[in-house]
Amino acid sequence: MSDTPDSAVRTYTEQHRTAFLDDLAEWLRIPSVSAQPEHDGDVRRSAEWLSGKLAETGFPVTEIWETAGAPAVFAEWPSEDPDAPVVLVYGHHDVQPASREDGWNSDPFDPVIRDGRMYGRGAADDKGQVFFHTLGVRAHLATTGRETPAVHLKLLVEGEEESGSPHFRALAEERAARLAADVVIVSDTGMWDENTPTVCTGMRGLAECEIELFGPGQDIHSGSFGGAVPNPATALARLVAALHDTEGRVTVPGFYDGVAELTETERALFAELPFDEDTWLRTAASHATAGEAGYSTLERIWARPTAEVNGIGGGYQGAGSKTVIPSSALVKLSFRLVAGQDPERIQDAVRTWAEARVPAGVRHRITFAPATRPCLTPLDHPALQAVARAMGRAFGTKILFTREGGSGPAADLQDVLGAPVLFLGISVPSDGWHGPDEKVELDLLLKGVEATAHLWGELADALR
Amino acid sequence: MSDTPDSAVRTYTEQHRTAFLDDLAEWLRIPSVSAQPEHDGDVRRSAEWLSGKLAETGFPVTEIWETAGAPAVFAEWPSEDPDAPVVLVYGHHDVQPASREDGWNSDPFDPVIRDGRMYGRGAADDKGQVFFHTLGVRAHLATTGRETPAVHLKLLVEGEEESGSPHFRALAEERAARLAADVVIVSDTGMWDENTPTVCTGMRGLAECEIELFGPGQDIHSGSFGGAVPNPATALARLVAALHDTEGRVTVPGFYDGVAELTETERALFAELPFDEDTWLRTAASHATAGEAGYSTLERIWARPTAEVNGIGGGYQGAGSKTVIPSSALVKLSFRLVAGQDPERIQDAVRTWAEARVPAGVRHRITFAPATRPCLTPLDHPALQAVARAMGRAFGTKILFTREGGSGPAADLQDVLGAPVLFLGISVPSDGWHGPDEKVELDLLLKGVEATAHLWGELADALR
Repeated sequence: MSDTPDSAVRTYTEQHRTAFLDDLAEWLRIPSVSAQPEHDGDVRRSAEWLSGKLAETGFPVTEIWETAGAPAVFAEWPSEDPDAPVVLVYGHHDVQPASREDGWNSDPFDPVIRDGRMYGRGAADDKGQVFFHTLGVRAHLATTGRETPAVHLKLLVEGEEESGSPHFRALAEERAARLAADVVIVSDTGMWDENTPTVCTGMRGLAECEIELFGPGQDIHSGSFGGAVPNPATALARLVAALHDTEGRVTVPGFYDGVAELTETERALFAELPFDEDTWLRTAASHATAGEAGYSTLERIWARPTAEVNGIGGGYQGAGSKTVIPSSALVKLSFRLVAGQDPERIQDAVRTWAEARVPAGVRHRITFAPATRPCLTPLDHPALQAVARAMGRAFGTKILFTREGGSGPAADLQDVLGAPVLFLGISVPSDGWHGPDEKVELDLLLKGVEATAHLWGELADALR
Repeated sequence: MSDTPDSAVRTYTEQHRTAFLDDLAEWLRIPSVSAQPEHDGDVRRSAEWLSGKLAETGFPVTEIWETAGAPAVFAEWPSEDPDAPVVLVYGHHDVQPASREDGWNSDPFDPVIRDGRMYGRGAADDKGQVFFHTLGVRAHLATTGRETPAVHLKLLVEGEEESGSPHFRALAEERAARLAADVVIVSDTGMWDENTPTVCTGMRGLAECEIELFGPGQDIHSGSFGGAVPNPATALARLVAALHDTEGRVTVPGFYDGVAELTETERALFAELPFDEDTWLRTAASHATAGEAGYSTLERIWARPTAEVNGIGGGYQGAGSKTVIPSSALVKLSFRLVAGQDPERIQDAVRTWAEARVPAGVRHRITFAPATRPCLTPLDHPALQAVARAMGRAFGTKILFTREGGSGPAADLQDVLGAPVLFLGISVPSDGWHGPDEKVELDLLLKGVEATAHLWGELADALR
């Protein structure tokens, strides 16, 4: 590739930077929190806003697709070349819950730019990364002189990813003909760091479970009754404590069945990355590493399944004390899954394991959110190599490979459409996904624009 | 004793019932919640209300005693008999937190009478039981024709019992000369049940502990970091799970040091009570008994020390899910102590035990509320026998003996004043202390009036 098209893309991107950022900020102001029913209207507003913006971008087809839950946005831009490969881009327009009290330095839904970063819920996960495709495809057309993209381009932007995509698979199945693609590009992941552009080759799956234990019919006096009836908070703590063995392995029988073990090659590739434990710990805001014995930190978060407590609660949590035996206690668990694990089998195994641990006199309720499958793409796939080349042209450097510890419904698309799933993401670990002060690095956001501007030509070449 | 004074007391009590209940309801309307700083003013208002009412009752001395926390009420009514024994009555005017949302069928601070019961926070614990002394002493005087009580009567009604009486011992020490007594009568306990009047011979102590564990500096994404850093909620669950062994014994080293073991005689006395497990479970609103192996339910709640979780919390507890590793998790523990256990040694032991269990990379904060000592009075003490006779005259039946699983600062009075502590309480297990729909049985409340009307003569005789 010559330098000319690369610098043309860069110039085009710079010229449109201000309007692009203004538009993104407008989108971030819509608090499209799919987990909180009071934001249902905002999720819909977010879908409508995006649909309008995609039409403005030039997509001749933009549609809002209803689901049994929140609406998704679909857009299509056919290529004039009848033999062009079909590419489906996936992202999501819903966001995690956020409130100022969680520790944000500014309103999570009133984005601000400080020090070359835009702070706001969804800035990186995932509105920012969906949005770079709009300027990207315009840069692709403007710098190649084309009227239509080099690939037949489709976009599917769902509205329930942060709630575990409960209706996504059904939507994909129902709309499989419209979604049909040779390759799926997911823009909902990250890179190694600000200085090490990488392409992700797989994501973990996710099974979420809520276990509630019920003891006394109401909170009862811990003096009058303490020591003589089962305490549901104690029972719950025992259940959570039993979830891992002393080696950090999950004890649920069958949990590791089918797990795709790391090859020596993959372990060596991971080890090539400039991993610095102190830096990583700072990003994780943590004071130590911990986890499954026999695996490195990167292997633990990318290639090993986990069980984590996301929330636990029961009894009196206010100021001072209230000497009660609580009537109930609740834990929210999430299991990250890797290639080879079947979410349905994991759910069954967790249920069986948990029910066997509920003591006499304690009642229980175990519920699962719809699960997300894991996925993994081979390193030598031509489309994966095309993504790496597009990234390399944007960043002007060698692209390394990673995996992603997080989860997305990408594997459902792989299943339903029979197409390989590739990842193009520009977020970095310090972006604070799901936490306070989520942000996106503006320079990287614009590299995302450039990468997608190159990607359609690279993919058309690679898949022809 | 002849029947005449007993029926005269009954008639006097009945004649003053309506005004007595109206007054009590007025007091219950003051939400004197000592654990919640926003109710500080109400706790003071409660003290002032009681002080005024005691003056109205005829106590020539009524004082509000300031502490470093909430104010206590002191009242004194000297006997004309210079050789009369000195009796100090103890109770408290503060109450547990309560809100309608906890499951109350009526406003906890707007008492209502339904089916012969008065519902309201403090109806039984402890305002109702303090208040029967006011009508009791008037019935004592009216039916004996005395101008002053047969004993030199003192009342101390504290305002921080539901917060663990943090300043009570200091108050007792500071005011020891004014409080000096031959015997202490505590009205802050209960009876076996509506049909089995009993006298309590001891109370458990209480050590309360809050343990907070800190992991990441903020909530972090359980996909990006899960499986590779310590999760404080998991660490906390392991700590709580390790608190008991499989026999239900507390594992904290030294916890059982010095525990006064039950004698065969005491076990036989307990076994005489008409204990019905199904009934007890209904009162406990529980579905099974559980606890330390080798002990009956009554032994477990009266004579054995315990460790209970009063509250646990960390991470996301709202609707839906939020896939984070929480930055912190908290547990509120209470340890009930029995005669022979030293609260300070228990606190040290718990701290040492807990700190040894905090994993690398997790920080901790362990705090203790001021502890309450256990206490126990010998069955053959003459004052205890006098209390039993007064109760017997009020109820017209044989009085049995119990202990109390709950805790009060009675043992501090025993320590500081060098006086035996006796219990006169009319609450029953179904009164719902600390829970929703706390109530007092009106018939029993009036038996409390009668019992105290008889008590001063009985004690004067017994201790002369």
